[in-house]
Amino acid sequence: MKNITLIVAMEQEALPLIQRLQLLNVSRADARLPFNVYCGGYKTLNVCLMSHGIDRVHKVPCVGTQAATLVTMEAIRCYQPDLIINAGTCGAFAAKGSAVGQVYMGERIRFYDRRIPLGDYKTYGEGHYPCPEGVTLARAINLPLAVVCTGNSLDMSPTDEAILRQEPVVAKEMEAGAVAWVASLYSVPVVAIKAVTDLVDHPVAAPEQFSHNLQRAAENLCHPVIALLDELSRR
Amino acid sequence: MKNITLIVAMEQEALPLIQRLQLLNVSRADARLPFNVYCGGYKTLNVCLMSHGIDRVHKVPCVGTQAATLVTMEAIRCYQPDLIINAGTCGAFAAKGSAVGQVYMGERIRFYDRRIPLGDYKTYGEGHYPCPEGVTLARAINLPLAVVCTGNSLDMSPTDEAILRQEPVVAKEMEAGAVAWVASLYSVPVVAIKAVTDLVDHPVAAPEQFSHNLQRAAENLCHPVIALLDELSRR
Repeated sequence: MKNITLIVAMEQEALPLIQRLQLLNVSRADARLPFNVYCGGYKTLNVCLMSHGIDRVHKVPCVGTQAATLVTMEAIRCYQPDLIINAGTCGAFAAKGSAVGQVYMGERIRFYDRRIPLGDYKTYGEGHYPCPEGVTLARAINLPLAVVCTGNSLDMSPTDEAILRQEPVVAKEMEAGAVAWVASLYSVPVVAIKAVTDLVDHPVAAPEQFSHNLQRAAENLCHPVIALLDELSRR
Repeated sequence: MKNITLIVAMEQEALPLIQRLQLLNVSRADARLPFNVYCGGYKTLNVCLMSHGIDRVHKVPCVGTQAATLVTMEAIRCYQPDLIINAGTCGAFAAKGSAVGQVYMGERIRFYDRRIPLGDYKTYGEGHYPCPEGVTLARAINLPLAVVCTGNSLDMSPTDEAILRQEPVVAKEMEAGAVAWVASLYSVPVVAIKAVTDLVDHPVAAPEQFSHNLQRAAENLCHPVIALLDELSRR
């Protein structure tokens, strides 16, 4: 492993990592796309970090699976990653033992908001991308595992909740399924590492918790992501 | 207008059009992607039709917004469309006056399953892409208008239903929002034309209606899509 691409949706999630890794902003290959690209070396690795950038109309970060799909395709075409690390923040269930600030590694990535109850479309919709590299790396750097569950909503409908409750430990987020799907087309392995910003079963609404805890969760990502890069550079 | 790209998710939706337009299968630029590409001339137009192709793992058509995102990017990069026509099938409300087989033109395209109740993220999530070209063309070829509402589920949760009921006439489908978002990055106009396969407020479940009416709806798309191409070739 030599070329590692980090995909991090929001600039605010990425900033502590960009600073800690001393990555430099480079111009994107296609100026029409909103993405930001930062590159640098870390030990034996070429590290590239892509964030989704800001939506030109609504002036907010381009979160969600559509942007993640395009970023992943651009990442693969422009930087030929040997491994993609999808790092970011997530919601989780207090009832499943999660707490704000906890960082999880994905043992599997799935969609929870692509419900297509029609034969084999059902499992296509759910995705279920196994992450064997993530499981091995989590053991090496001592991270707990979660099922990373992807959907395009920050809130949680009763329908979403019923699906999510069926999984063991959950990291509910908005990008990993799309990253995993595109990467699977090109046979690039993906690991997902997610820090908890909000407890989805807490009386305070998720968006409020998210805003309050985003900075802290982004800081919490740094240590395990750098431990992951250390581990990868040793291999 | 000279280069017209049709994006049609499922091969079954596309087949009557491919035959009627006598388009020929051409090899895709990137063999790793599952998409199918058909090209040909129609009157003064270069017509290219892309379908999403078949998922290699689950052996079903790659429906939904993640595939639509990639297809649209490839369409724009490979075929430089002056206009993208996203044609396909949809669900609709009997209570809003819709019937199976009816074909609608999108007056606006929005997501209904990207709920991000946090400041300006809300409208970013919903999308709301106006389709002025669609409104003009619908008038010219005498098609009724609908709000094309995009989400990744074939079924409809109570949360989805509450959002969809707030719109006037609805074409509930799984791709147009992603097509419109990517096209907006490249300033390519998009029109969406959708034939009703299922009534979402009917006692028979949507997937069952969808399977039963898919062929008929795909046939019903041909006449208005060709009328649209006739109109475009006259301009």
